[in-house]
Amino acid sequence: MTEYVHGYSEREALRLSEQADTLEKLLHRDTIYPPGAKVLEAGCGIGAQTVILAKNNPDAEITSVDISSESLEKAGENVEKNGIKNVRFLQANIFSLPFEEDAFDHIFVCFVLEHLQNPEEALNSLKKVLKPGGTVTVIEGDHGSCYFYPEGRNALEAWHCLIRVQAQMKGNSLIGRQLYPLLKESGFRQVKVDPRMVYVDSSKPELVDGFILKTIIPMVEGVKDQALEMQMMKEEAWKKGIEELHETAEPGGTFCYTFFKGWGTKEK
Amino acid sequence: MTEYVHGYSEREALRLSEQADTLEKLLHRDTIYPPGAKVLEAGCGIGAQTVILAKNNPDAEITSVDISSESLEKAGENVEKNGIKNVRFLQANIFSLPFEEDAFDHIFVCFVLEHLQNPEEALNSLKKVLKPGGTVTVIEGDHGSCYFYPEGRNALEAWHCLIRVQAQMKGNSLIGRQLYPLLKESGFRQVKVDPRMVYVDSSKPELVDGFILKTIIPMVEGVKDQALEMQMMKEEAWKKGIEELHETAEPGGTFCYTFFKGWGTKEK
Repeated sequence: MTEYVHGYSEREALRLSEQADTLEKLLHRDTIYPPGAKVLEAGCGIGAQTVILAKNNPDAEITSVDISSESLEKAGENVEKNGIKNVRFLQANIFSLPFEEDAFDHIFVCFVLEHLQNPEEALNSLKKVLKPGGTVTVIEGDHGSCYFYPEGRNALEAWHCLIRVQAQMKGNSLIGRQLYPLLKESGFRQVKVDPRMVYVDSSKPELVDGFILKTIIPMVEGVKDQALEMQMMKEEAWKKGIEELHETAEPGGTFCYTFFKGWGTKEK
Repeated sequence: MTEYVHGYSEREALRLSEQADTLEKLLHRDTIYPPGAKVLEAGCGIGAQTVILAKNNPDAEITSVDISSESLEKAGENVEKNGIKNVRFLQANIFSLPFEEDAFDHIFVCFVLEHLQNPEEALNSLKKVLKPGGTVTVIEGDHGSCYFYPEGRNALEAWHCLIRVQAQMKGNSLIGRQLYPLLKESGFRQVKVDPRMVYVDSSKPELVDGFILKTIIPMVEGVKDQALEMQMMKEEAWKKGIEELHETAEPGGTFCYTFFKGWGTKEK
């Protein structure tokens, strides 16, 4: 089918690590804290970002919290599997954190605000436990930043289901573009936002495979049941949509998605 | 209204030049040809890009063609006003160029393919007059890459009018994402495409003013008559749409748009 799918199996491990590496660098390369820094990771989930954060900051003292004890258990395993020693986990609600004021030097929040009904309130709550002069780093996606070629009508519709399902769950998958005003309105100073665009064409087989086929399409497929139940699409159209999304991974296809990384500082 | 609109008049000249400078660098900084290179600019219009190209390449011999003699006249004035001496103008159709095969070392095409019904055919025609080993450089926008905050419903609709009007005129304002396959299918080698995203928030007053207020909104307003005539929107909704677009230029607003720059080489 494609020049890059040939030889897939023997190169899989290498390519997967190349892909992870590419996205990891794109999003995380510049999240580096000084040795000894007390860092709070708010909303660590199953620890996918925790591992990266801890590896990039082996001499920081990281506290990772999540509201779900189930996720925390997986995060613990994930961190242990990777031989990481500088993370402690704690079950906590981001809106009522069990820490003293000014407890942390820095705060890290990645793919969390998009799931909250009150992201500004969350940032305010986080600011309380941050030391004056400390920074918050926020990374979020923006599903409205996604476009592709060829642009099949059903693929577009399926993609919009993803946005609508998240909105139904009181989340906001279009939050990336909103980081700047959110950080400003939460009272952070020296706010800066930097978009990190992922552009994929067939000259980048590791992203075709790792981003379009292994990240984006499974993410869309993940809302199939809800989308069909809520009658956002008919099953036949959904199936076509997924097929059309696969066309973007063929040699003539392209895919674009943008993450946003933002920073703010608590006033001294 | 906004912190950056205060003091507007006294800073206007400076800011306009800063904005032009920012976008100019984003798109053109890496279009540098060797001294003596024979460069064809295809579709120069009124010479907006010609001036930049010629200033960045004072020792190249530039030939700029356009199908419209009216535009060429303005381009000539534009170039003269800027004291540029290394450009000659010629009226020509991109699909039947009045040059010998292999006449040029390099070709430059900026904001042209989006207006053509057969962009691949245009690239093929250009390839004929390019020397083996020579390069083509293509810059195009992609109107589907545009999103903003706040995202007013009428603003979105007005923006889509822009895309639809261009489609009615047999153009394709979503061509940026398609550059890679277009260059490949036209037979160019070593094809590479690099997206150039413009991200605007209120920490960048020169882009708020120069990009949102002076480029984007006037561009949308430019299709008002066609959009209303074709009954794409009602006048009241259109008016609201333009108001909503202005909100993206206020302190809480953000705006995103991506240009695509592509390169290909003619086989030796």
